[in-house]
Amino acid sequence: MRLKSVVSSLLLHPLQPGDTIGILGGGQLGRMLALAAAQLGLKTHIYAPEEDSPAFDVATRITQASYEDEEALRVFAESVDVVTYEFENIPLKTAQFVERLNRLHPGAKALSATQDRLIEKQTIAALGLATAPFKAVDQRDDLVKAIEVLGTPSILKTRCFGYDGKGQVMIRAADEAKEAYASLQGAPAILEGFVPFTREISVVAVRAANGAFAAYDVCENIHAHHILSETRLPAAITPATHQKALNMAQSLADALDYVGVLAVEMFVTQDENGAEALIINEMAPRVHNSGHWTLEGAKTSQFEQHIRAICGWPLGSCKRLGTVMMRNLIGVDVDQWQALLQNPDNHLHLYGKSEARQGRKMGHVTQVMAL
Amino acid sequence: MRLKSVVSSLLLHPLQPGDTIGILGGGQLGRMLALAAAQLGLKTHIYAPEEDSPAFDVATRITQASYEDEEALRVFAESVDVVTYEFENIPLKTAQFVERLNRLHPGAKALSATQDRLIEKQTIAALGLATAPFKAVDQRDDLVKAIEVLGTPSILKTRCFGYDGKGQVMIRAADEAKEAYASLQGAPAILEGFVPFTREISVVAVRAANGAFAAYDVCENIHAHHILSETRLPAAITPATHQKALNMAQSLADALDYVGVLAVEMFVTQDENGAEALIINEMAPRVHNSGHWTLEGAKTSQFEQHIRAICGWPLGSCKRLGTVMMRNLIGVDVDQWQALLQNPDNHLHLYGKSEARQGRKMGHVTQVMAL
Repeated sequence: MRLKSVVSSLLLHPLQPGDTIGILGGGQLGRMLALAAAQLGLKTHIYAPEEDSPAFDVATRITQASYEDEEALRVFAESVDVVTYEFENIPLKTAQFVERLNRLHPGAKALSATQDRLIEKQTIAALGLATAPFKAVDQRDDLVKAIEVLGTPSILKTRCFGYDGKGQVMIRAADEAKEAYASLQGAPAILEGFVPFTREISVVAVRAANGAFAAYDVCENIHAHHILSETRLPAAITPATHQKALNMAQSLADALDYVGVLAVEMFVTQDENGAEALIINEMAPRVHNSGHWTLEGAKTSQFEQHIRAICGWPLGSCKRLGTVMMRNLIGVDVDQWQALLQNPDNHLHLYGKSEARQGRKMGHVTQVMAL
Repeated sequence: MRLKSVVSSLLLHPLQPGDTIGILGGGQLGRMLALAAAQLGLKTHIYAPEEDSPAFDVATRITQASYEDEEALRVFAESVDVVTYEFENIPLKTAQFVERLNRLHPGAKALSATQDRLIEKQTIAALGLATAPFKAVDQRDDLVKAIEVLGTPSILKTRCFGYDGKGQVMIRAADEAKEAYASLQGAPAILEGFVPFTREISVVAVRAANGAFAAYDVCENIHAHHILSETRLPAAITPATHQKALNMAQSLADALDYVGVLAVEMFVTQDENGAEALIINEMAPRVHNSGHWTLEGAKTSQFEQHIRAICGWPLGSCKRLGTVMMRNLIGVDVDQWQALLQNPDNHLHLYGKSEARQGRKMGHVTQVMAL
């Protein structure tokens, strides 16, 4: 009931040009959201704990404080017209605290359903959508029993605070259970059955305060060392699978009373007849790395769509403008920037991070070839 | 000689990601330059006198001070890696002061050749390019003689600080000279013969530190009350006229040792045989309103091209992506923002200005229809 009234507030009182968007988190996603907000005449207030947050460089106002600093959060929440977050690992308590003071989109409900892998999988399963088989693991005994049911190989994942492969360990044989459990250091977890898949795809979608839904064409993702390496469009899937993927994303967005951009990662598998099937891997309640191509490859970027949605504004068009290749620049990849600028087909994006640490997303490069 | 050494400095020491671009002027052009710089991982430092400068909202660092404040200018110039300006009416003395402390692109030479209509016309004429006939007017007698030579109608224009029709008065008969001269309040001026034209066009071009030159397709402009109202591409001119316009822009850019984006406004006239001819109206040493369409309508925007050029980086592609219509939102036009967002073909840009004064550029909207 509470969420419904929040949504109505956005419909009755959409933001006006000149208003301020509060963003929890100061990484590259916050930075690109701030740039999109500026294009639409909006101001931004970035809240992040790290001094060298990339989003600080382009924000109208910044607050550098911890997510537990309730006084700083209060001042922040009361200074802006709507609050959003750029990653799903901000503490749920922080989101709930902010939501009591101002509009938060996506809401704390969406955050809790995506930052905890157990709730995430339960949410997906409750809608009748396919996920990898899973079991909750709260203690070592649970893990032993889960391995008996799901077999090996299987993947032990912390319920919370995992991304880019962090907090995951592959279990190849039952006798690895003890060591794997120890690596969790007591964190609640789930065991996931291993799903042999042929492709990884994602749907980047957006839902407006009035329930309107739009989605970009499905993209195909290639990971290296658990980090997104490349995104390509169109994905090599059948039209039926394509439509099914979009429908699954819409079911999730509707179920979560979602407002903003939602990313849903899926595995393409083969059923017993060799036909394509889809399994949802995970969701992200935010703009997503696999949607960066939309900056040049779609009529409206995912960043603008998210801003429009959380302002209570009409959505833009998700129309794709060409054949797309987006490649992440991870760590020292960024040293190629001069060579990348030489190719006039490249759109180079750098995130303003000073240190090119291993595995760190430093930028990306997109090519769009006209259809 | 001096300029050559400055150019070499940019080639020998191009900017690096993470470096800072200083921008003199805080209007919408500075704002959009700052957004383009951020995409490339650069920081910006905006210097402007007005407290509510639109570019302040998206800058990494700001200085609010007058263009005559040499101490503030010194701190600014020494804090950045290159300086540019977003409009040509900053005092030449300010530009020269900054150029003694740091790299300035475009240089003070380009600024002086564009902010003074007399030097501008002499520069154009010295290259053998056509302008409207003109005479310098330093005192009332000059005006009387100039009218005898150029006839009426003719246009009296202050040499400096004119834009969007400011500082201009049309003289329809010789007996209007006295009143027209009085309106100048002693400012040095020129009289321009009236040129009957069929179209107004502009070339937005960019020149790199190594002399590389690129230009967007010629655009056609429609003015209302001396302010740009609409830009359309392609311009309805012959291929020969199109090429000639680009060549004229390149001659000017080369002659000025230009680094950055240069806009050249031209009139299309008919010669005695009814064929198209071109006359240069004026130049702007900066990104230009008639180039805003490049944000969505070209492979690389004029803002990114300017940033690349003044960083000593390779230029991007000026390739046009479709048929383009760009419309300015002047004054209360901006109140249409909600209706404009409803059309998925519109790309809406708002500049974050709080007050929609008459004649004030508040934003623009672009449509690009695929070729």
